[in-house]
Amino acid sequence: MTLNTSNKKTSVNPFPGSDEIVAEIRTLFGRLFPICRSLTGDGVRQTLEILKSICDFDINSVASGTEVFDWIVPEEWSIDDAYIADQNGSKIVSFKENNVHVVNYSTAIDAVLTFDQLRPHLHTLAELPSAIPYRTTYYKKDWGFCLSHDQLERMDKKAKYQVLISSSHKPGVLNYGEVLIPGHSGQEYLVSTYCCHPSLANDNLSGMVLWVFLLRWLKSIKTEHSYRFIIAPETIGAITYLSEKTEDMKNIDGGYVLSTVAGPGKFGYSHSFKKDHLIDKAAKLAMADCGVEYINYPFDISGSDERQFSTPGFRIPMGTISKDKYFEYDYYHTSLDNLDFIKPEYLSKSLILYMMTILNLERNKIYKSLNQYCEPMLGKRGLYPSIGGSQKQKVGARADFFEKQSNLNKAVTVTDEIEAMLSLMFYSDGEVSLIDIAEKTKLPMSVLDEKAKLLIKKDLLELVK
Amino acid sequence: MTLNTSNKKTSVNPFPGSDEIVAEIRTLFGRLFPICRSLTGDGVRQTLEILKSICDFDINSVASGTEVFDWIVPEEWSIDDAYIADQNGSKIVSFKENNVHVVNYSTAIDAVLTFDQLRPHLHTLAELPSAIPYRTTYYKKDWGFCLSHDQLERMDKKAKYQVLISSSHKPGVLNYGEVLIPGHSGQEYLVSTYCCHPSLANDNLSGMVLWVFLLRWLKSIKTEHSYRFIIAPETIGAITYLSEKTEDMKNIDGGYVLSTVAGPGKFGYSHSFKKDHLIDKAAKLAMADCGVEYINYPFDISGSDERQFSTPGFRIPMGTISKDKYFEYDYYHTSLDNLDFIKPEYLSKSLILYMMTILNLERNKIYKSLNQYCEPMLGKRGLYPSIGGSQKQKVGARADFFEKQSNLNKAVTVTDEIEAMLSLMFYSDGEVSLIDIAEKTKLPMSVLDEKAKLLIKKDLLELVK
Amino acid sequence: MTLNTSNKKTSVNPFPGSDEIVAEIRTLFGRLFPICRSLTGDGVRQTLEILKSICDFDINSVASGTEVFDWIVPEEWSIDDAYIADQNGSKIVSFKENNVHVVNYSTAIDAVLTFDQLRPHLHTLAELPSAIPYRTTYYKKDWGFCLSHDQLERMDKKAKYQVLISSSHKPGVLNYGEVLIPGHSGQEYLVSTYCCHPSLANDNLSGMVLWVFLLRWLKSIKTEHSYRFIIAPETIGAITYLSEKTEDMKNIDGGYVLSTVAGPGKFGYSHSFKKDHLIDKAAKLAMADCGVEYINYPFDISGSDERQFSTPGFRIPMGTISKDKYFEYDYYHTSLDNLDFIKPEYLSKSLILYMMTILNLERNKIYKSLNQYCEPMLGKRGLYPSIGGSQKQKVGARADFFEKQSNLNKAVTVTDEIEAMLSLMFYSDGEVSLIDIAEKTKLPMSVLDEKAKLLIKKDLLELVK
Repeated sequence: MTLNTSNKKTSVNPFPGSDEIVAEIRTLFGRLFPICRSLTGDGVRQTLEILKSICDFDINSVASGTEVFDWIVPEEWSIDDAYIADQNGSKIVSFKENNVHVVNYSTAIDAVLTFDQLRPHLHTLAELPSAIPYRTTYYKKDWGFCLSHDQLERMDKKAKYQVLISSSHKPGVLNYGEVLIPGHSGQEYLVSTYCCHPSLANDNLSGMVLWVFLLRWLKSIKTEHSYRFIIAPETIGAITYLSEKTEDMKNIDGGYVLSTVAGPGKFGYSHSFKKDHLIDKAAKLAMADCGVEYINYPFDISGSDERQFSTPGFRIPMGTISKDKYFEYDYYHTSLDNLDFIKPEYLSKSLILYMMTILNLERNKIYKSLNQYCEPMLGKRGLYPSIGGSQKQKVGARADFFEKQSNLNKAVTVTDEIEAMLSLMFYSDGEVSLIDIAEKTKLPMSVLDEKAKLLIKKDLLELVK
Repeated sequence: MTLNTSNKKTSVNPFPGSDEIVAEIRTLFGRLFPICRSLTGDGVRQTLEILKSICDFDINSVASGTEVFDWIVPEEWSIDDAYIADQNGSKIVSFKENNVHVVNYSTAIDAVLTFDQLRPHLHTLAELPSAIPYRTTYYKKDWGFCLSHDQLERMDKKAKYQVLISSSHKPGVLNYGEVLIPGHSGQEYLVSTYCCHPSLANDNLSGMVLWVFLLRWLKSIKTEHSYRFIIAPETIGAITYLSEKTEDMKNIDGGYVLSTVAGPGKFGYSHSFKKDHLIDKAAKLAMADCGVEYINYPFDISGSDERQFSTPGFRIPMGTISKDKYFEYDYYHTSLDNLDFIKPEYLSKSLILYMMTILNLERNKIYKSLNQYCEPMLGKRGLYPSIGGSQKQKVGARADFFEKQSNLNKAVTVTDEIEAMLSLMFYSDGEVSLIDIAEKTKLPMSVLDEKAKLLIKKDLLELVK
Repeated sequence: MTLNTSNKKTSVNPFPGSDEIVAEIRTLFGRLFPICRSLTGDGVRQTLEILKSICDFDINSVASGTEVFDWIVPEEWSIDDAYIADQNGSKIVSFKENNVHVVNYSTAIDAVLTFDQLRPHLHTLAELPSAIPYRTTYYKKDWGFCLSHDQLERMDKKAKYQVLISSSHKPGVLNYGEVLIPGHSGQEYLVSTYCCHPSLANDNLSGMVLWVFLLRWLKSIKTEHSYRFIIAPETIGAITYLSEKTEDMKNIDGGYVLSTVAGPGKFGYSHSFKKDHLIDKAAKLAMADCGVEYINYPFDISGSDERQFSTPGFRIPMGTISKDKYFEYDYYHTSLDNLDFIKPEYLSKSLILYMMTILNLERNKIYKSLNQYCEPMLGKRGLYPSIGGSQKQKVGARADFFEKQSNLNKAVTVTDEIEAMLSLMFYSDGEVSLIDIAEKTKLPMSVLDEKAKLLIKKDLLELVK
């Protein structure tokens, strides 16, 4: 089966919440989770290749040492093994058991150290004593190990330890993935995610997986707008990309940074720096139409790659739909953010929300009523229900994507359908867009879009743009 | 006594809440309620004639078959009798008992039918089993009866029934009433209501009665603005009028649709599509000044004739003050919306609110201070109270119309009066209107208006427009 | 020690909450409280001379009878003694005991009167029976005594009383104090207070004292903007000043009216008529940065001298930070508003808030990022903390002025510092001011200001204006 969900539903079950898709997500989780990713190196390349096997995109590279705005593309980091062994040779902390144990981007070491010598290089989380924290040392040459606070407390403070990190930093490349899905509206939207985190699940294995499924779906439909998909290491990858494609990136209308989309916690929406931009409205209407309750997060200067995309030189408004947002969940940046924490089913719901968000951008056209004086007589065109009976009867789901798997769907009634037609005729003066009408009326974008097409067919409405 | 309440109070009790007015409203309720109205026909004509006897206006007609924008003026519907009789000839449902029993605009029938043949033509309300629902079949040739669910359950399902509707549809006219009260400000406001509902009280006997009393009052005073009063069948009547007077109607500044103003429930205000237009402010200030708590209703595309007046070709902002708003009360569009449900006293309160609303429009002038530098010395002009004592003493009611019949009035204090004068001098820079000042200061429009006139007399203020 | 708190902290304890400052405030309270002030006369002159001994300013005068806009400068009022004595010659009400006993600006009288003759000239407060009310009769020739309601009740209603007011009204001058602290930004701010209240403490002994301490501090630092300090009798003094300096006063950007700043009640902020002007933001950010909870008061046409400064001819937006705002506290305008009611420690807190407010105006510059594309690499410039550990460590107080005396300070963390730098780089596009950035980010102005200077030093930011 395919994810191919075109606007015109043609297959019986093109639904991302289906068992097949959930199984496909689960398989991908299993393949990608164990890889030791970093800013650069084999882990990133393996990850991009596996994602590319789900849906094709270009994998590009920029050489270490390249100046990218205020930054420099770093060397490639390779790591074979790393451990701390006790006096009996028993490995008490081992990279091969969990790659989070090594401070990411650590320099090499092979030495016997006293506990006191070792201690400054050990990182733990006293407040979550069973978790291994995730730490990096990208921009300072250093080495270290991360371990649970419980482990630290069990260590013999008088003992000596064999400490090994078999790593190297060598000139190489920084890799990123990209693809442009061309549209014809003149508008272009960005969908980005980052691929530099090692064995951590919600942040950001989940974002990468959603990214590739969203890409596969978008490639399967004919889009109005262009969509640029980017996957790169966080911060330096985004900066490198922006440096490579500076002029192209100045013309982008908005976009989304995909991150932390499969946790057990609440949905959230992180606003663009513009607060109430079209991309914010499209996402929030999608969530409202699905009956999803979500936390509103304001723009945060300490967020993800919107920190780069939205800087003065580009000013691309970027939003993020999350399920258990980074920073906010207890297991964030620890070994407990693993495959027991996230669920394919949660990711599939986030995927639906992003699909609906993009459909909202696609549907956001401006129409003009061809019947400016008084309302049209819907009845003579067969657009009005006959007399009698309540107008509350259900004629469809407000959010068809959620319909089969959740109780989140709200009925679309005959009243909704009539209101959608009347609202389209009332507000469409050639200036007001469909998202504006959805905000005014609280009607689902899907119903407004469907009725707009019907009214065009009946010569009551015309498309302005 | 008369309703003549000019801005200058000349009579001792020109007050619409007076016993005489309440009695007059009650009498009119009694005369108008029983009439079987529809879109067209004798019921509408009788109704308009009775209203005209309270206050004169023109009654015009447009021939059946006339094209009015996207619609066609319908034929006249006449009905003599209608009933369902059982096998003993006993009439179990009779038009003569309650005209709501017949689906309005039903075609004729005279037949003996089995219960099963009859059933598709019977309309009941299971959730309000003692009520007869109100149904229409204006735009589909059909016939039917409305009855209480209790009645339906008592019917013998095996029996045959004599079914008669003695009605006809013939070319005739659609009637509407109108009058223009001319002003000299260049602004024109619309006051409309609809007259097509049969024996239903709050919707919309109450609106018609308020309309004619408001008209009588407005004709008795000299107005700044022009006021166009229209009464016509809902939807098709408004469309017909707009079609007849298209160019005139493009220059209207705003208005009110009168509907459901005498129920026992809460006051409400339905906003214009502009949300915060002058006509919205005028009505809301009137309600605030009377100490009336009310429900805010947003603009609703499924509302009343604002659906026509506010379409792109006209874009007239229309608001509605209601007491027990249509759609919202349990008895809406049923036989229980009768003379036991509404009260003349409630209508008189709504009338006061509309009078104050219109006075707010009349009072909404722009002034300019003639003393731009520092505040004027009020004392030397006798405008300031002498020393000593609290400034909280009551000098009048904030809402003089409500004063005598309710506890809703708030005292106007000396402090209010001084604040009104200081505020007028402070804000009046030739741009800010009296309604703006009322919104900023929360002072009653009546006090601001009175003090503005006083300050003009004292050469401290001039009228800009 | 001195109040000299420059932007660059040079002394160990330049802190206005210090014991030395509190003692200095207490001494000044004691010297100024007993003086009988009025609109004009010796009381005002003594008061201004004492204040001038703390920090120099000009004392000017305008002759009685001078026309000032709609008003006339009044005569000087002198009073030697006043009392009501009983038949035994015992003074039951005596000016020498409390100058509030005499209605301020009373004409002279020397007579024996029955209680009934005297009664209309006696003012009491039944609702606060132990307090002597404060009353004036500036613009009506009259005389009177104020006494506690308890005193009134104890008076023999059958007795005769010896009544003396030894006062005179003679041509003289109205005095005011002023000084201009010149800056170079082209912006000028006004700081005004009033000096016409006799022995009343919070209103407005406290305002006068804060005024002179704020003046002394501002004179000790080099300011960007110009500051005009005015002290004059309320209303007529402000009008006189505006009349004398009309053209100068048309170019002022905003300011503050100092009043009621040392009571035991809540802090408050009274907004300018512009509601959300820069001067409002500067004050509210100061209060937020200090962790001060305060009551928001809207602009009030019955307020203090903003009534004059903000009239259409000048339109200077004026705000007021208060501690126990005038009108709002029970003892307002009574003898209970005395030195037992206010505290020097409270005044020193209000002083800190005003200093921070003015620093906010001083700090409110517009910067432009010199690194418009992506964020700068803070690490290579030593601006980023090294890895590991929580970023929550405290690096300073959000509100350094409050730090030593209260628990109101919130920690400034490493995270705050990084966010400040990133926010400055992100928002500084040459249009957005520091106050705008503080509002968006909720970061303290002091931290933003400090980091802006650091980023300029690192060639990452430039000052636009």
